[in-house]
Amino acid sequence: MRDVAIIGVGMTNCGELWEQSLRDLFVEAALGAIDDAGVDHIDSMYVGCMSSGLFVGQEHIGPLMADYLGMGPVPATRVESACASGSVALRTGMLEVASGANDIVLVGGVEKMTDVGGDEATYALATASDQEWEAFSGITFPGLYAMMAVAHMHKYGTTREQLAMVAVKNHDNGSKNARAQFPMKISVDMVLNSVAVADPLRILDCSPITDGAAALIICPADQAKKFGNKAPIKIIGSGHATDTIALHDRADMASLEAVAKSAAKAYEMAGKKPSDIDVCEVHDCFTIAEIIVSEALGFAEKGKGGAAIEAGETALGGRIPINTSGGLKSKGHPVGASGIAQVVEITEQLRGDSGDRQVKDPKVGMTQNMGGTGASSLVHIMEVM
Amino acid sequence: MRDVAIIGVGMTNCGELWEQSLRDLFVEAALGAIDDAGVDHIDSMYVGCMSSGLFVGQEHIGPLMADYLGMGPVPATRVESACASGSVALRTGMLEVASGANDIVLVGGVEKMTDVGGDEATYALATASDQEWEAFSGITFPGLYAMMAVAHMHKYGTTREQLAMVAVKNHDNGSKNARAQFPMKISVDMVLNSVAVADPLRILDCSPITDGAAALIICPADQAKKFGNKAPIKIIGSGHATDTIALHDRADMASLEAVAKSAAKAYEMAGKKPSDIDVCEVHDCFTIAEIIVSEALGFAEKGKGGAAIEAGETALGGRIPINTSGGLKSKGHPVGASGIAQVVEITEQLRGDSGDRQVKDPKVGMTQNMGGTGASSLVHIMEVM
Repeated sequence: MRDVAIIGVGMTNCGELWEQSLRDLFVEAALGAIDDAGVDHIDSMYVGCMSSGLFVGQEHIGPLMADYLGMGPVPATRVESACASGSVALRTGMLEVASGANDIVLVGGVEKMTDVGGDEATYALATASDQEWEAFSGITFPGLYAMMAVAHMHKYGTTREQLAMVAVKNHDNGSKNARAQFPMKISVDMVLNSVAVADPLRILDCSPITDGAAALIICPADQAKKFGNKAPIKIIGSGHATDTIALHDRADMASLEAVAKSAAKAYEMAGKKPSDIDVCEVHDCFTIAEIIVSEALGFAEKGKGGAAIEAGETALGGRIPINTSGGLKSKGHPVGASGIAQVVEITEQLRGDSGDRQVKDPKVGMTQNMGGTGASSLVHIMEVM
Repeated sequence: MRDVAIIGVGMTNCGELWEQSLRDLFVEAALGAIDDAGVDHIDSMYVGCMSSGLFVGQEHIGPLMADYLGMGPVPATRVESACASGSVALRTGMLEVASGANDIVLVGGVEKMTDVGGDEATYALATASDQEWEAFSGITFPGLYAMMAVAHMHKYGTTREQLAMVAVKNHDNGSKNARAQFPMKISVDMVLNSVAVADPLRILDCSPITDGAAALIICPADQAKKFGNKAPIKIIGSGHATDTIALHDRADMASLEAVAKSAAKAYEMAGKKPSDIDVCEVHDCFTIAEIIVSEALGFAEKGKGGAAIEAGETALGGRIPINTSGGLKSKGHPVGASGIAQVVEITEQLRGDSGDRQVKDPKVGMTQNMGGTGASSLVHIMEVM
């Protein structure tokens, strides 16, 4: 396998972007990445998107995006793994470059979620759960994650306040990110007194409905220094694992096995351990998710993720800063784009381009992105070349 | 790049399979392929599916299928390129094996289309065209292919009867295929007198709405002889190209540039030319498609595809037998599965397992699968090891 590096990044703002269509969003991010990399062509592209069919009535978006980007007739493939669609785009593109089939590959993600109403968006998102055994019975994602929160609180004593502290930390970080959808700072009291969604989760525990896109240019690591003006970022670890689609089929609702397994593979491939990671973006679709994920990645002992938040260990300036971008919670969660947006944040951190939210001199960064209640998870580890 | 071989195939019947759900169909095909290959595990899997979101309200079907197949926690990714989704599953899986990341990979395709009514199915299929510039204006696929037929008839003198002969040939072949949805033989008169759909196309020019699934096991060619009892089939060429998503953006509606470009790449990789191909499955979603595709693949001169059909050159026993399975027209068109079903047919032909529709002693086979009006096309060339 050839080593693979990131040589360009591009990203739209996150928000209710009513003046930009699905294709407008993707093309803006892709042109940004192409410009950042300084490449004059691409050989192939992958588009991560969860449900353009349900959100905007458009499938077949691989060739659609190649066409609107002016890159046809390059091969263009759409990949989907619910909210992990962006990371599977990165992984499939990385495997194509690793194979030697092509050199300069665009990998991106996009979702246009605000053209439908809230009920329709909730229906579309619920298709990431088991339609026949979960969604059909009426449960949606806030309810599923609420059950995980209850399980974690019961088993480990995680507190309602610790959940709120995840949101507070991520909004603090997001307030320093010009791309963030909800950059306002919030307090624990504001979270606790916000409207209930699915007990114990309140609206300020939930990531928003977001339009947005993000893109990367990747190439063989040994060619990376030919392109762009910035330090290439080498992808040194990639792990992908799955779990049962339905939450009720798992032995333990307070853990995320696919996250642990995808992390173990990425750590092994990279030859790194949790203490080697300097900055990390994780999938905080709900506050409880960040707590369980931080345990599965080895940043906190099992059951101690809440305590780690409370102690400030995952804040900017803490032992392992998590979600410096603001995370899905504050930056926004354009589901098919989120995995790539995480890599954009880590790339900028490793380049030293993160401004007010810059972690001091990071060498190794990580992203963790998952679909559904963790039925799919991908972890990538990157370092400055 | 490592060479890759097919060591197992599996496939459901095609039809209105009301007693089997999306997951049932995929698992039946996948277990067939696993059994045929004689493998005791898989390392990774790819699922091609066009629109499980619109057809059955289920996205995230990579992990869903891994789960129901009992193969979790293997990495599982859904890929989509409209009606070419099956072939992109093969290509992405092939690139993963070629890269060295994994050895035993399941690649499959599935579509469950008959749980919705005809209007909903037509809407779902129209999402493979340009939603904003084609589908929104009311045109659907029979109308788009009808325009291509009119252009080809006007430019080259292709006759209404020649279109009908494609359907007659494919139903002749399908009558010998136990998996076919519509195995009845038909006549040119029956086609000409069948109900009009979009002038000049009639209902017997159109492929049907189909439930079905197909799957392959692939592995490094140098390991292939360890598995199964049958001759491994090496993938010697793979080409993937795109074109404008909208038909009206093309210079010529009577040709398919992405088909020609994907074929050129596959021929170059394989070191083969059209006259080297002994048997071929092509994407005959409408009768006119087979005529234009056969020209783009080099089996007939430009404008002479209709004459080649009329002369029997593409019939069983002809110069280059096309769609021995019955094609999408008679065998059926479960859209996400069709690309893999084509490879199942070619694998069985190359193994000599095709019974009454066996081509005499074929050495090299080809598949051509496309999405929309040819905005994406993939060509694969295979030979007996």
